Amino acid sequence: MAFGWIDEQAELRRRAGLVRTLRPRPAESPLLDLASNDYLGLARHPEVTEGAARAARTWGGGATGSRLVTGTTELHAELERELADFCGFEAALVFSSGYAANLAAVTALAPHGSLIVSDAGNHASLIDGCRLARGTTQVVAHSEPDAVRKALHTYDGPAVVVSDTVFSVDGDAAPLARFAEVCREHGAGLVVDDAHGLGVLGDGGRGAPHAAGLAGADDVVVTVTLSKSFGSQGGAVLGPARVIDHLVNAARTFIFDTGLAPAAAGAALAALRLLRREPERAARARMVASELHTRLTAAGLEAVRPDAAVVSVRAPSPEEAVLWAADCRAAGLAVGCFRPPSVPDGISRLRLTARADLSEGQIERAVRVIGETRP
Amino acid sequence: MAFGWIDEQAELRRRAGLVRTLRPRPAESPLLDLASNDYLGLARHPEVTEGAARAARTWGGGATGSRLVTGTTELHAELERELADFCGFEAALVFSSGYAANLAAVTALAPHGSLIVSDAGNHASLIDGCRLARGTTQVVAHSEPDAVRKALHTYDGPAVVVSDTVFSVDGDAAPLARFAEVCREHGAGLVVDDAHGLGVLGDGGRGAPHAAGLAGADDVVVTVTLSKSFGSQGGAVLGPARVIDHLVNAARTFIFDTGLAPAAAGAALAALRLLRREPERAARARMVASELHTRLTAAGLEAVRPDAAVVSVRAPSPEEAVLWAADCRAAGLAVGCFRPPSVPDGISRLRLTARADLSEGQIERAVRVIGETRP
Repeated sequence: MAFGWIDEQAELRRRAGLVRTLRPRPAESPLLDLASNDYLGLARHPEVTEGAARAARTWGGGATGSRLVTGTTELHAELERELADFCGFEAALVFSSGYAANLAAVTALAPHGSLIVSDAGNHASLIDGCRLARGTTQVVAHSEPDAVRKALHTYDGPAVVVSDTVFSVDGDAAPLARFAEVCREHGAGLVVDDAHGLGVLGDGGRGAPHAAGLAGADDVVVTVTLSKSFGSQGGAVLGPARVIDHLVNAARTFIFDTGLAPAAAGAALAALRLLRREPERAARARMVASELHTRLTAAGLEAVRPDAAVVSVRAPSPEEAVLWAADCRAAGLAVGCFRPPSVPDGISRLRLTARADLSEGQIERAVRVIGETRP
Repeated sequence: MAFGWIDEQAELRRRAGLVRTLRPRPAESPLLDLASNDYLGLARHPEVTEGAARAARTWGGGATGSRLVTGTTELHAELERELADFCGFEAALVFSSGYAANLAAVTALAPHGSLIVSDAGNHASLIDGCRLARGTTQVVAHSEPDAVRKALHTYDGPAVVVSDTVFSVDGDAAPLARFAEVCREHGAGLVVDDAHGLGVLGDGGRGAPHAAGLAGADDVVVTVTLSKSFGSQGGAVLGPARVIDHLVNAARTFIFDTGLAPAAAGAALAALRLLRREPERAARARMVASELHTRLTAAGLEAVRPDAAVVSVRAPSPEEAVLWAADCRAAGLAVGCFRPPSVPDGISRLRLTARADLSEGQIERAVRVIGETRP
């Protein structure tokens, strides 16, 4: 029978306690949210939702075509200009998702005959980018510039080094400045995904590359998402204008995808302008993360010191992680639960995200619930 | 220098006349649009744009997380139920783009050790799905069930046959019923992308699989986009509930992507309900396409007989195709221009799309301009 093997896999998942099910949420949830990636608390901000609504009314429900045919509106161009300007890069190109932006950047910048050096902790979308690219991928130990140097040393042709700036699972930051140094020794390009850095790190939330002094560099390309700190949907690639022109001409997930919906572009643009006006939101997200870590550690929990807004707490096993998250939920707290196969090292965690708009009382409540429900 | 090879490629493109540049469009364009994929003319329909605006206000600017964490709202679940019901399938799963839906369906349904039989005319996103999948891909001649049979005949393990239902470039339809027959002879699954069929083909726009009597079959999986006939953004996979459950657990572009923005889900749901209420829009789109073809052919142009809403007109060369499209634009008509490397056969075309809301006068004007500007 067609797809017969699916049932065997489902049975294996069931036995291993690894079944995933969707849980639709209502518009007004009574849960305290420490699970979303809405780091600045902007997804429900009236300026952001009005930005979406206004764009839909002005430009339509969709972009109507691929970016090179009818799918580029003046709104897309405006968002790209302001995003590039904010992050300090020459140009930007907006995609329908961060996933698509990562596939584009890696595939278009790693042609046949090139070497891709990829950090072992990279996000699935960067890994898929490496798998789709015509270049050869070498995976290197997590956040180790010396491993990158060694990989580049073995190779003569064009090379790119690919890494997250902040890793999604443990919330740890990559050694960007040292990666850039190693790249420059070898004339390699650096492609970094700032999904969890934009809006949180750097001056006023300009991101990890900006904080590392890499903004505007001619050998650095940055990808970002509009769906985390910017409370919308979509992704973007930032870099030198010549690299962006190259993507327009060569990146399949740009050329063959419908343009980002106007509502998403409008929401992201509103969030970007709001962040420019209220730059303290970025520092507040970092402060909340630090506070969560301090209190969780004081409560005897094994939490990783956060470099951005993600705080990871280790759980003894996948089953206990699931129960722990469920107990938190029963006590009114939504937390993320990461377990195999979503975690590269096989260690299950609760994953907390520090929103800039969490109050002192909410932080205290979250830490109390997590402590009381620990396995 | 990092990315040095990009400049050489740019120079080659320039010499070959294949440079692509973005042309941002204003909200109110004076051009007559035969270039977008807005087949039913719904992208600017007030019910659709209000659906987007209302969803953004109610649910926020973004989904705030991946579908398995916080990114599934009751609105997503509602859209999935109504979409599955409309197209006649047991279940549906919504993605941030049709590209992501195709990557998900092909990769999750073609595991290590399986065979993928892929039509030579398939869309880039299906091809990338084949390249990402762990199974082995065999590309077969375009729309030839016998070639599919031969490929399946050589193989013993699990297999899937992958095809567009309506091919984007020439607008021709795949022989779906015969593909299904061949699949059943061999116990293979059939995965088809109905991006250009949904809203246009089948009873009231229920799509090409519905028209071919394949809706609800336990060995058929359909992908669709929400960004064409539905005037929004996003994609979906439709199929048996067990297949959809499998995707929730195994498809990387589902698990590791932020959920579709509420505004896009709201716009698509509004378009779906409008189409249910006004099913004649689907037939009207087909009629307009047929009318365009008849008149273009009568004017001595080489147009492919349309099976859905795409009408392809051959151009003598890439350069002449670009000039032809530019002359149309100068005369107030927006048409698509497909040329290498976007066309698998290397033949450049003007690509016209028949919107259901084109008037007789607009059809006449379009045909006149295309005829007068021909190379």
